[in-house]
Amino acid sequence: METTIIDGKQVAAAVLEDVRADMAALAQDGRQPGLAVVLVGSDPASQAYVGSKERTCNKLGMFSRKEELPEDTSQEALLALIEELNQDARVHGILVQSPPPVHIDEAAVVRAIDPAKDVDGFHPVNVAKLALEDPSAFVPCTPLGCQKLLIASGIETAGAHVVIVGRSLIVGKSLGLLLMAKAPHANATVTIAHSRTKDLATVTKQADILVAAIGRPHFITADHVRDGAVVIDVGINRVDDASAKRGYRLVGDVDYDAVAPKCQAITPVPGGVGPMTIAMLMANTVKACRQQSA
Amino acid sequence: METTIIDGKQVAAAVLEDVRADMAALAQDGRQPGLAVVLVGSDPASQAYVGSKERTCNKLGMFSRKEELPEDTSQEALLALIEELNQDARVHGILVQSPPPVHIDEAAVVRAIDPAKDVDGFHPVNVAKLALEDPSAFVPCTPLGCQKLLIASGIETAGAHVVIVGRSLIVGKSLGLLLMAKAPHANATVTIAHSRTKDLATVTKQADILVAAIGRPHFITADHVRDGAVVIDVGINRVDDASAKRGYRLVGDVDYDAVAPKCQAITPVPGGVGPMTIAMLMANTVKACRQQSA
Repeated sequence: METTIIDGKQVAAAVLEDVRADMAALAQDGRQPGLAVVLVGSDPASQAYVGSKERTCNKLGMFSRKEELPEDTSQEALLALIEELNQDARVHGILVQSPPPVHIDEAAVVRAIDPAKDVDGFHPVNVAKLALEDPSAFVPCTPLGCQKLLIASGIETAGAHVVIVGRSLIVGKSLGLLLMAKAPHANATVTIAHSRTKDLATVTKQADILVAAIGRPHFITADHVRDGAVVIDVGINRVDDASAKRGYRLVGDVDYDAVAPKCQAITPVPGGVGPMTIAMLMANTVKACRQQSA
Repeated sequence: METTIIDGKQVAAAVLEDVRADMAALAQDGRQPGLAVVLVGSDPASQAYVGSKERTCNKLGMFSRKEELPEDTSQEALLALIEELNQDARVHGILVQSPPPVHIDEAAVVRAIDPAKDVDGFHPVNVAKLALEDPSAFVPCTPLGCQKLLIASGIETAGAHVVIVGRSLIVGKSLGLLLMAKAPHANATVTIAHSRTKDLATVTKQADILVAAIGRPHFITADHVRDGAVVIDVGINRVDDASAKRGYRLVGDVDYDAVAPKCQAITPVPGGVGPMTIAMLMANTVKACRQQSA
């Protein structure tokens, strides 16, 4: 059996092509989607993510507003900026790069974002809409990207058993709610496993589609995967590597070399789920623009 | 192996004893919890539920306000009543009996209830709080009652595999979110199965704890249950029975006679989950009173 390597870069590029087409249609009505990205502090990884989001906006011709605030920005000042962005008619989507400095109450910041502009999908209104299967929901970008990878690869979820390892709201729970919905590209039987799961391998071996979102390098081994399964690896972990230029390399939650030969299909790290996140952010921003003009 | 029959009436009575004790403590501060129940139309089953809730309030010495509106009540009139109840300081919990007449937009009515008084737990704010594992959430009464039955029966959920058949928000999804939380009496591995699940028996046989919430009489048979499992039957279905006084009898989603002998423990219908729903409604009303006075 030949294993299909799911090419996240290629699928992300196709999503961005759709975004371009949607933007061209919106431009006919004189509308241009806009995204505001807020960064507090100077964490290098966060700076890189924010820069990459801004560049993607620019390449697409999307309006982009980047706000970089110093590390010691107060909660009040950040909330005042959010309120200004809520009022800015050029901005349809607002994203505050996570994690903010520890003195910031991140949940309160998320709640301050206008739910109609919450393209990250973390506002309680959008969390509830996802659970309620409301199609106007903004679904968090990483789960949405996982679903898109399955669709693009022709992998049927209806009736399939999806086992997700990891119960974070950002990935595990949201993806579970997304894929169990009575909706196209969903209708899956969903299991959520996590650090407290007993006999994890027995559970994960039930999976037609196994999603790893634990944040531990190479945690999922060949013993966790049944022959012919589809494996989606959400993990992006840095491991020391003296031979690498930067002194580290990125690996997933899945022991790729051992697992890949058993799979029907698998996402690599990097180049799998990673590139999807920004692409789905752009798709969510177009959706926000469309819903705000409706 | 002796099967434990989980006695919902007994557990519900114990919950109501706790409610009494909590009310006595609140009375020391001059506070009396209050519940408003709204019924639109004259469906006999709904009238019976509403009457039973009112009687339980009265027995406990809880303030009770019952509003019975005619079948042809307009959406506007109902929303005006909800707003009045939101403002009524004697009322800490508001419940609109489901289902309302078809001309009523039930979702809009639920959204009109002050989330702090949403003791049914269906307001989007409470749905999101449950997903976010916020302990101030009002969890819907039936899932909360299922969890309480497990606690009262000494059945450990941490690390256990809970398989829930049924993906409604009212039961399946909410119970899944409740039991997968990183919290005491939770921490379970959770699978949600449903009408689109392939090879359901293989999935349900994985269950240490199997929850049936499908709404189909005797749908779960002995073939769906592994020896030694715990079975919670949420179903309440009417089946014709000429020998019964009312011409029907109530049966669960589980074929009790065939399944019970295989189980470590099982809830009967009636007398299992059913009595828990009103008890948890009372507990939620006390919680609402406490949170509103805090």
